[in-house]
Amino acid sequence: MAGMDGVTEETVRRRPATLRDVARAAGVSVATVSKALNDQGRMTAETRARIREVARVLGFRPNGLAQSLLRNRSFTVGLLTNDTYGRFSLPVMAGISEALVDNGVSVFLCHVEDDPRLGQLHVEAMLDKRVDGIIATGKRIDRRLPVDLSQLGIPVIYAFTEPAPGAIAFVSDDAGGARLAVEHLVRLGRRRIAHVTGPASFAVVHTRADACGAALAAAGLPAGAPLIGTWSESWGHAAVETLLAGLEPPDAVFCGNDQIARGVIDGLRERGIRVPGDVAVVGFDNWEIMAGQTRPPLTSVDMNLAALGREAGLTLLSLVDGKPVEPGIRTLPCRLVVRQSCGRPPGG
Amino acid sequence: MAGMDGVTEETVRRRPATLRDVARAAGVSVATVSKALNDQGRMTAETRARIREVARVLGFRPNGLAQSLLRNRSFTVGLLTNDTYGRFSLPVMAGISEALVDNGVSVFLCHVEDDPRLGQLHVEAMLDKRVDGIIATGKRIDRRLPVDLSQLGIPVIYAFTEPAPGAIAFVSDDAGGARLAVEHLVRLGRRRIAHVTGPASFAVVHTRADACGAALAAAGLPAGAPLIGTWSESWGHAAVETLLAGLEPPDAVFCGNDQIARGVIDGLRERGIRVPGDVAVVGFDNWEIMAGQTRPPLTSVDMNLAALGREAGLTLLSLVDGKPVEPGIRTLPCRLVVRQSCGRPPGG
Repeated sequence: MAGMDGVTEETVRRRPATLRDVARAAGVSVATVSKALNDQGRMTAETRARIREVARVLGFRPNGLAQSLLRNRSFTVGLLTNDTYGRFSLPVMAGISEALVDNGVSVFLCHVEDDPRLGQLHVEAMLDKRVDGIIATGKRIDRRLPVDLSQLGIPVIYAFTEPAPGAIAFVSDDAGGARLAVEHLVRLGRRRIAHVTGPASFAVVHTRADACGAALAAAGLPAGAPLIGTWSESWGHAAVETLLAGLEPPDAVFCGNDQIARGVIDGLRERGIRVPGDVAVVGFDNWEIMAGQTRPPLTSVDMNLAALGREAGLTLLSLVDGKPVEPGIRTLPCRLVVRQSCGRPPGG
Repeated sequence: MAGMDGVTEETVRRRPATLRDVARAAGVSVATVSKALNDQGRMTAETRARIREVARVLGFRPNGLAQSLLRNRSFTVGLLTNDTYGRFSLPVMAGISEALVDNGVSVFLCHVEDDPRLGQLHVEAMLDKRVDGIIATGKRIDRRLPVDLSQLGIPVIYAFTEPAPGAIAFVSDDAGGARLAVEHLVRLGRRRIAHVTGPASFAVVHTRADACGAALAAAGLPAGAPLIGTWSESWGHAAVETLLAGLEPPDAVFCGNDQIARGVIDGLRERGIRVPGDVAVVGFDNWEIMAGQTRPPLTSVDMNLAALGREAGLTLLSLVDGKPVEPGIRTLPCRLVVRQSCGRPPGG
């Protein structure tokens, strides 16, 4: 190709090609290259095509930073999380990332932990880098990140973390998830359904317990007080004793998370009580590595966190594009993932 | 303050302040503001100080993008991972993030999964955004990410994923970790130490098994063939039968991961065999939510993945700064986290 002499594969790959490299290889000025690539200036179609081909061969890519300055958008967003463990935020983040990458936007990851200083540092860095917006996500929906995002002057979306007042937020429909679990057990013919769950300091504990009670009442079934404990297997294991101490032991247990359910199943098995034959068990979270390894594998409520992240990402893009978005909290539906811990309907 | 009339808290916060806002509020030209903030041009120290104070009050921040163009560095790096589940990459990522943020560098998160198209898309986006370098991380050290990073013309570091030939990579010292486990068991007086581990398709299975055998030989103890299976609790549970079928059942089991160890412990308990009284058990990964909930809590090898990520991040910064770094693979030490599954030394 004309003008390509001396440009070897070697020199092409040593560093990103610049406008100057393209100009030298094409035998034209830098200004002409710039005009050719930006569809501006006067030149023949052949010249424009030739310069573009040289740019392509050299692997030239327009400077994204310079383009961002021109368009006053960086096509980046900041993703703040305080969930270093990641079980909840990771699927949310994957959903956000997918929605944004599909739209040509890159994501800055910011682990703020629970450290206000680190939070402030990250937010400053994001503002310095002129992110188009910020998504905040965390490990529980009733706690804020350790940094105030309400006055940054750029769009902010909250996903699976407590929002600032009047902000736009996405959370899972925990009440709906609890209803799915109880209705499934009722449909399978279970009549004495207990609820074993986590600490009262979590808002979702009350949301799920209240919805469980309401679903039982709607089915004309008795609802005892939920057993409140911790989010652990050991609590589930210990709760079995209380469950079996009553006059009428339960024929089903709806658990506040999969770890509790795992402990309940282990505790029942160790007492010779069959799951699902004697007692059906449902978990919450659908944490696959846990739910898939209980014996039998655990039916569980899935909060659809990746879909939640995706919605949050797309909504942030709408805001960045200047589209009107109603403030407020959106609750997105859960789904029930059926495995073997509840058995089949009577006669089914 | 002079020149601050009409600048209310409200207008300050509506959008990021620009050079123009500062100029208007200070009653000087945009060029003068720019010179004052960049320590250039001729003006009195009082004027410079006054303009800076106005900029501070208005919350003006220099445009990071424009500064990046000037300095030919973006102070960003790309972090590629194919680990959507995150158990291994999340601590690595947290370590990388910490090292970089401490040095004023922000991290683009790129979930490439195992999709070459997605990998290419992310890499293109990173190059467009002119990242200073890329760190690749994954879910196992003997598989590559689905994208070639060897010819990008920017520094690349591999952490907990298979590197390109001749690249700089960080992995955990799996052989050293296995030695720690076996030497701990030997020190506690165990003499018949079995090894139950994951699939032969994983390089670490051989690394750990070979080191286990060598450590047993060094202690003058017999080393049977490792029991090869899957990385699951159910495999650990099933392996117990084989372990107990021999003439001399083991008095200790070193397991290839914590899930296998969990299954082994459950299987032993269900047969009335005491852990650690009759059999000591050690895991690998120190996955806290698993290791802390086995009964008894599990002693396990920790790969120090956050420290590994931190080293990888700091090394990338050295490369970006143009410092010489030897190519090759660095193995970083593991540590043993002692809980209750191995008991105390005889008479201890």
